[in-house]
Amino acid sequence: MRVAVLYSGGKDSNYALYWVLKQGFEVKYLVSMVSEREDSYMYHVPNIHLTELQAKAIGIPLIKGFTSGEKEKEVEDLKEVLEGLRIDGVVAGALASEYQKKRVDRVAGELGLESFAPAWHRDPVDYMREIIEIFDVVFVGVSAYGLDEKWLGRKVDEKALEELIKINKKYGIHVAGEGGEFETFVRDAPFFKARVVFDEVEKRWDECSYSGTLIVKRAHLEWKDAQK
Amino acid sequence: MRVAVLYSGGKDSNYALYWVLKQGFEVKYLVSMVSEREDSYMYHVPNIHLTELQAKAIGIPLIKGFTSGEKEKEVEDLKEVLEGLRIDGVVAGALASEYQKKRVDRVAGELGLESFAPAWHRDPVDYMREIIEIFDVVFVGVSAYGLDEKWLGRKVDEKALEELIKINKKYGIHVAGEGGEFETFVRDAPFFKARVVFDEVEKRWDECSYSGTLIVKRAHLEWKDAQK
Repeated sequence: MRVAVLYSGGKDSNYALYWVLKQGFEVKYLVSMVSEREDSYMYHVPNIHLTELQAKAIGIPLIKGFTSGEKEKEVEDLKEVLEGLRIDGVVAGALASEYQKKRVDRVAGELGLESFAPAWHRDPVDYMREIIEIFDVVFVGVSAYGLDEKWLGRKVDEKALEELIKINKKYGIHVAGEGGEFETFVRDAPFFKARVVFDEVEKRWDECSYSGTLIVKRAHLEWKDAQK
Repeated sequence: MRVAVLYSGGKDSNYALYWVLKQGFEVKYLVSMVSEREDSYMYHVPNIHLTELQAKAIGIPLIKGFTSGEKEKEVEDLKEVLEGLRIDGVVAGALASEYQKKRVDRVAGELGLESFAPAWHRDPVDYMREIIEIFDVVFVGVSAYGLDEKWLGRKVDEKALEELIKINKKYGIHVAGEGGEFETFVRDAPFFKARVVFDEVEKRWDECSYSGTLIVKRAHLEWKDAQK
């Protein structure tokens, strides 16, 4: 089974990749859709380039597809990217979002591809436990009541999970962040040949929207084998 | 004819792209091979990310393939990337390098693809005149006697070409930079939907090796249509 994995660099797409690699699927490409009109570059939204660092650490080619950002056009743009690949299936990190799942399933169906979502409808707490076990992963974005600036850059570990469970009870956030409550970044995984090391980070916090982002200004790869 | 264009962001790969678009070929992907072990990120070798900005301006998906950097492995890595694409041909910006041309031809042959090199064996001066006419292009690297720091960031125009011809006569450099005498960056072309604008640049000059690089620290896209 030759597949492309939709890849954003967070826990869900890395979990999806982890799962298909474990099944012995041949992962030909990682696919990342970025908004065309984003005025971003480096200092503005530097984290966008971190995905490339991860792809390099993994050693699988990364396809950056561009989309106008309009919701429906996005599906067509993704289809256009996948249509040119010699693959049998597409893999997404969808957890519980029907909207996201349906879109990918539709594109896959139209292209005659199988569609996989290894984490689909997993129990959030159970899923987070597995994430913690497999990955070195940190919070790089938070956007929910109960999650403050202190969460930015924090490691996703058992203690963080316990707090998330408490905040879930109090404010109703999704423990695995499926509602956009937080964004994560995977710095290391069993299939990474190098670790992503953050050299310089900056927390940006917006009190009005009660949300924030960890901006990674500099990062590098630390290769796991002896060779540099 | 569905093709992938080997793309580095300089004049040659943009010329190759220009040519195939003019032929009415369907360009499915731009393919950029980057060295895996380059310790680079942002501040270190920031220009590597400029290719993505160009791809976004062009609106064609960019595939970043990773290679260990060993010469022979590089060909295999490129083959691996191309092998997964539903294309009929591959396009390279090769001018006069037999080595480069042969490598791409071999990979294409093994994959049953046609191989195109639109600028192959063009007269250098004639070719440069066409480049000047079509592109907004600047020197971002120089590495040859006769080319000093002042060339970094300079526009490739008729006046620069005349000087290159003179330096060619004096020191024997290749007028189109085929021997690595200089590197260029295309900021605008007829097929760009946005211009690349440099916001902050820095010249790095090494007197020992008599070579230098224009580091683009910040850049953004300026869209040509009314919409932002």
